[in-house]
This record gives sequence, structure tokens and C-alpha cells, in this order.
Amino acid sequence: MKIVLDAMGGDYAPPVAVEGGVWAAREYGIEVILVGREEEVRRELAKCDTSGLSLPIVHASQVIEMEEHPAAAVKAKKDSSMVVGMNLVKRGQAEAFVTMGNSGGALAAALFGLGRIRGIRRPALSTVYPTTPGFCFMLDVGANTDCKPEYLLQFAYMGAAYAEKVLGIASPRVGIVSNGEEETKGSILVQEAHQLLKKSGLNFIGNVEGKDIPAGMADVVVTDGFTGNVIAKLSEGLAASLLGIIKEEVKKSPLATVGALLSKPAFDKVKKRLDYAEFGGAPLLGVDGVVIVGHGRSNAKAVKNAVRVAKRAVEGGMLAAIKDGLQDRRV
Amino acid sequence: MKIVLDAMGGDYAPPVAVEGGVWAAREYGIEVILVGREEEVRRELAKCDTSGLSLPIVHASQVIEMEEHPAAAVKAKKDSSMVVGMNLVKRGQAEAFVTMGNSGGALAAALFGLGRIRGIRRPALSTVYPTTPGFCFMLDVGANTDCKPEYLLQFAYMGAAYAEKVLGIASPRVGIVSNGEEETKGSILVQEAHQLLKKSGLNFIGNVEGKDIPAGMADVVVTDGFTGNVIAKLSEGLAASLLGIIKEEVKKSPLATVGALLSKPAFDKVKKRLDYAEFGGAPLLGVDGVVIVGHGRSNAKAVKNAVRVAKRAVEGGMLAAIKDGLQDRRV
Repeated sequence: MKIVLDAMGGDYAPPVAVEGGVWAAREYGIEVILVGREEEVRRELAKCDTSGLSLPIVHASQVIEMEEHPAAAVKAKKDSSMVVGMNLVKRGQAEAFVTMGNSGGALAAALFGLGRIRGIRRPALSTVYPTTPGFCFMLDVGANTDCKPEYLLQFAYMGAAYAEKVLGIASPRVGIVSNGEEETKGSILVQEAHQLLKKSGLNFIGNVEGKDIPAGMADVVVTDGFTGNVIAKLSEGLAASLLGIIKEEVKKSPLATVGALLSKPAFDKVKKRLDYAEFGGAPLLGVDGVVIVGHGRSNAKAVKNAVRVAKRAVEGGMLAAIKDGLQDRRV
Repeated sequence: MKIVLDAMGGDYAPPVAVEGGVWAAREYGIEVILVGREEEVRRELAKCDTSGLSLPIVHASQVIEMEEHPAAAVKAKKDSSMVVGMNLVKRGQAEAFVTMGNSGGALAAALFGLGRIRGIRRPALSTVYPTTPGFCFMLDVGANTDCKPEYLLQFAYMGAAYAEKVLGIASPRVGIVSNGEEETKGSILVQEAHQLLKKSGLNFIGNVEGKDIPAGMADVVVTDGFTGNVIAKLSEGLAASLLGIIKEEVKKSPLATVGALLSKPAFDKVKKRLDYAEFGGAPLLGVDGVVIVGHGRSNAKAVKNAVRVAKRAVEGGMLAAIKDGLQDRRV
């Protein structure tokens, strides 16, 4: 299998991206194509043990930065690592594209290079969200701020297909984010989408409230990109804030400090359970190719795991599952 | 000062509500009018030391339950504690109404009994939200799922007036929830409201992302009732989930368990900082009277503190501040 990795994507690229790519090539026995400024990538590769690994470099002179306006950047930077990388997938020279870069940029580059899956109204950004019992899969988390009910229905189909084929969850429980359990609760958008979801043939469990998401009530959490983005960023901020408050209070007392030292291994496990690096990345759903986007602050392990997610998506037949699902259901 | 307390409101009413009311009457030296089923209230009062306190009972035979549809319940139950209590405020027999009951019911009863402040398009539910540095004030958290930009502007004026007059924050920083910092980010609603807020004369700091809320970037966080409700419930659920995960991991190791015992006082302080009981309740803004709504799961301390919030709102001239603000700004 050949997977393209954006060597220039993420806050610590290229060093961390390249390191993660090398790690992935070794651990999964696949070819990882590194796309980016050849000289820089070669310099980073030289620092790694690459013996016996297949890590070709494809040169791309430009980089889409984290703060750039996605569509404009993709138009202006035809020789960016994202645009060049997507083209490799389009031409069948690789099976998936993985990036830790600007997620909006990845979406724009994917739409430009790969296009949408026939019948899909709007592609969505997704995320794997840690819950008390494990994790759930949430979409959209930022691609579409204003949605129509049919978009949310399609997000549900795509999310369920991904959860089933790639995450290995049989008959995933699908919920829609709302401000109350009853089906009469919610914005007009959510109420209308709720009715579509009831008739969808999916394992639809109804509305999920804010508190139900971390409790793990649903496997696939469907929402518009505005709400999903707020949920994802709030959760990350709140976890950091809470751990910060705990640290602050513990530091005030010498006894508590000793106690915290003793319980540190437990806290490390908590952090691991919440760590996005463990999940690696999540797919851009609805574009006609396997594209995995990881966190901008990804470390090498997260990059490696994002490549694993791409590999699983290819092996699990994610694209075919979405296409079949659409056809079966005539959405 | 006379404050009406809904003796039947909340998950543990009437015992907890009555206990909190007695506590408030003693601590703040005010008259607390208990409205509810006279016999039940009297029975609870008999368990408390009420010597020297002014705690009259006003009978109301019905109760608006937590799950009831607000508007329908208020229409059907004219002799409910909420409707009867609001009428006491309307007739000038008390200065404020406090309840731990159905917040939608309180809104409907307030609209029915007290009406809106002249010029206010939509009243809002609010909440005090714990942050790393302290707290912020957020609205709307559930009254209006679908909003217009002008509603959000009015929420901002009302929230700023409350933060200034009651919470004692000079020139509060007002932010609007969005999915990105830049003013071009956000749903159509948020982008339009952003433009109104820029010209509002308020200390508007722009968009706040999910992660910025627990970090305490804004003093007044403005959003529509759908998003606000999801944020409030998610935050509560996430904090509980995180503390649950910590407990689970700590329990797995005897050493960590000892450590956790040593650091327990610090954790208790963390819980206290996050505890809604400390904040008591938050106002229903935009109705023509002081109405404070607390958490359904409130304990007696939260009830007492909710009465304190009501007292401060009366003393701080919350209603006049909102009315003056509207007039000055010709919203």
C-alpha cells in the first residue's frame, strides 16, 4: 500500500511529520510517500534510520500555512504539498493522503483535486472524540457552518459507514446533537433533520444533549460544522482547563503534592485516554478519496497513528461503503 | 426586602428548597416568601429552626414538573407555585422570584405574569460558567434555539448590564461564540451579529472559540440558545466524565489510591470551584422583573445562594440598568 504524507503539514513540520512517516513505514510495512520541499525533507530523513523502508520524496515547493484562507490558498498555491499530494491520489499513484496541516485547506485541496463523491451535497470534517467508555465519532466539526437537514442526513450515513467499516463498530448508534432529548427539542434545522434520520434505516437513537456526548451515549454524533467545531474546541479547552485547575490546587499544599506524585501514573493514563495522538486523525468524508486530517499539534506518534487510520480506511473499503450506502438509500 | 422562593421547584423540593429558604432568610436578614402546597411546606418548615425569621407561606396547589412542556403547563396550571409566585412580584408584594424548577416553565410563567421589558425582542436564560481564572456569564442557554442577529445584540446588552451591576465587573469583555477567531468565521447569524456588536458601544472583544470559554477570555459570552445549551450541558458532562475517568484510573492502583487520599483536599477545592451550588443561580434576562433560576439538582446551599443572587440583582438595580441601557442605545 502507498500512502502520501504531507511532510509540511502541522505545527512541527517537517521534522515531526517526517519522523512519524518513517515510524509508520516501519510499523505498518507500507510505502509512505513524503510530499514537500525536497531538500528539507531529505535533511529530516537523514536523521532517521530508514534502512529497508520505502520512503520516496515528491517535491512540492509551496506550503499552505495554518492561518491561510483555505480556498484562496489552494488556488494560489498549485505547487503546495497538499495540492501535489492530492493529485498523487487522484492519479492512482497512492491510495490515501494524510496531513496534519490546515484542515480547511485539506478540504479545499481535496475538493479541487479529488472532487466530491457523486450524490454527496457537502463533505464534512470529522473527529474521534474521547468518551468515558472509549470514543465516539463526530461530524461535521467545521466544514459547513450553515447546514440543511439533508446535509446532516448524509453526514449520518457517511459517519455510520466509517464507524462500521473502519472503526469496527457494528450497527453504530447514531445521535444528533440537540438541546433536549425529546424530538420536539432543537433548532428548526435539528428538528427537520431528526425526522429524516428517523426514516433513514440507520440505528438512530435520537437527540443527544451536550452531557450525553462525553458519556458515550452515541457512536456517531451528527451536528452542523458550527456546533461541532464549538464542541470539539470546547472539550479540548475544558479538559486542559480542568487539569490546570487541579494542578494549581495541588501545588498549594505540600501533602497534596506528594499525593499527586503517587497518583501520577494514574493521571498519565487519564491523559493517554484523552490524547488525540492515540487516535491520530479523522477522515474528510464525502470527497472522492481517502483523506485523513490530524491535529496541527500532532507529535510523531500522532502522525504515525494518522497513517494507520488511512491504512485502515483503505483496507476497510471506506469509500466503497459510503458509495454503496448512498446508492442503497437513494439519498 | 421580600423575595419569593418556589418551594416546589427542583429535584429535591420541597425539603431542600425550604431548607435553603430558611438559611437565606437567616443569613441575609430578608423575608423569604415560600410559595407552594401549604401543608407540605409547613411540614418542612417545622423541621427547621425558624425563630425570629420572616417566612410566610403563600399556598399554590399545583406544581410545574421538570419534564412538562413549559407554555402548556403554565396555561393549564394557573395555581402552580411558579404562576402564583410571579404574580406576587407583579403585584409588588415581593421584589424577586427564585426557582430551582423547570427553567422553560419559569420563562413561560415570567412572560405570562411579568411580560417582557419594553423593547426586548426575546428574553434569555443565562448561566454563570466556571473558568480557570474565575467565571464568565453566558446567555442564551436555552430559551431561543433559533435567533436573529438583533436578539444576540440584545443578549449582549443585557448580559453586560448584569455583569456590571450585579457581578461587579467594570466594562465587561463581551465575546460571541464562533468557530474561529476572525470576524469572517461563523454561521451567517454569528457573522451578522458580529457586525452589530462591533458598533454596539460595548467592550466587544470579537469571536470566542470553544477553547476560549473555559480559559476565561470573555466576561460575557453571547450565543444562541441552541449552542449555549449544548455548551452548558457539555461542560457539566465533560467535567463529570473527566473526574470519573480520573477516579477509575486511580482506583486501579493502590499507590495512586493513597496519593489521591493525600490530595483529596485539593480535589475538594477543585470541585468547589466548579460547583454550581456556589453560584446559586442566574437571571432570566429580558422579563420585566427579577427572576433567578437555579439548577434542578440544587442543594440547600445552592438555593440559599440563588436567593443571594436575587438580592444582589434587586440591590444592583439590574432591571433599571437594562432599561436604561436599551434607551441609551435605542436598540
